[in-house]
Amino acid sequence: MDSKFVLKQTARMLQNYLTYQAVKTVIDQLTETNPPLAIWFRQFSSGYNFQEGELYLQELMQQNKELALRIMTVRESLAENVLEFIPEMVLSGIRKDNME
Amino acid sequence: MDSKFVLKQTARMLQNYLTYQAVKTVIDQLTETNPPLAIWFRQFSSGYNFQEGELYLQELMQQNKELALRIMTVRESLAENVLEFIPEMVLSGIRKDNME
Repeated sequence: MDSKFVLKQTARMLQNYLTYQAVKTVIDQLTETNPPLAIWFRQFSSGYNFQEGELYLQELMQQNKELALRIMTVRESLAENVLEFIPEMVLSGIRKDNME
Repeated sequence: MDSKFVLKQTARMLQNYLTYQAVKTVIDQLTETNPPLAIWFRQFSSGYNFQEGELYLQELMQQNKELALRIMTVRESLAENVLEFIPEMVLSGIRKDNME
């Protein structure tokens, strides 16, 4: 079992997932504060699958630098708030579901 | 920003992802040790998207209990080996990529 390879893949996948969650968060915020930009941003983002989060950010940077920086700030903040609880939560979830 | 909601979703997604990685690991092992079963298992698993990992395991349990138990063992072991390094690795990955 190649845990090192799985670790790298898992970390990459999780970074992309947090980028996706940051985009969802910012779209929700913009829907309140700037609906036309929310519509544009939703449309721009729907063309991506977020398995290449950094590529997405590079292209967003060219279209709207401010928004790209905001996504980076939000995903770092999500990572800070969420990641520390993840190991315990996932491991106990797996153990609980294995028992069932 | 609803970090609690993102935390729950992230943990669920990660559990499903580790189930998927366990399936890949076991298919690799079976390809060496039991090729006919590897073929059957690959086919069975290709019908699932692993966004419903527990449903997948329930249905595998009905088809091949031994294999279902093996997936559960492998994903718990992957979780034990991988998760503790995840918070630091993802956070530093995000900070590094944000700088670039």
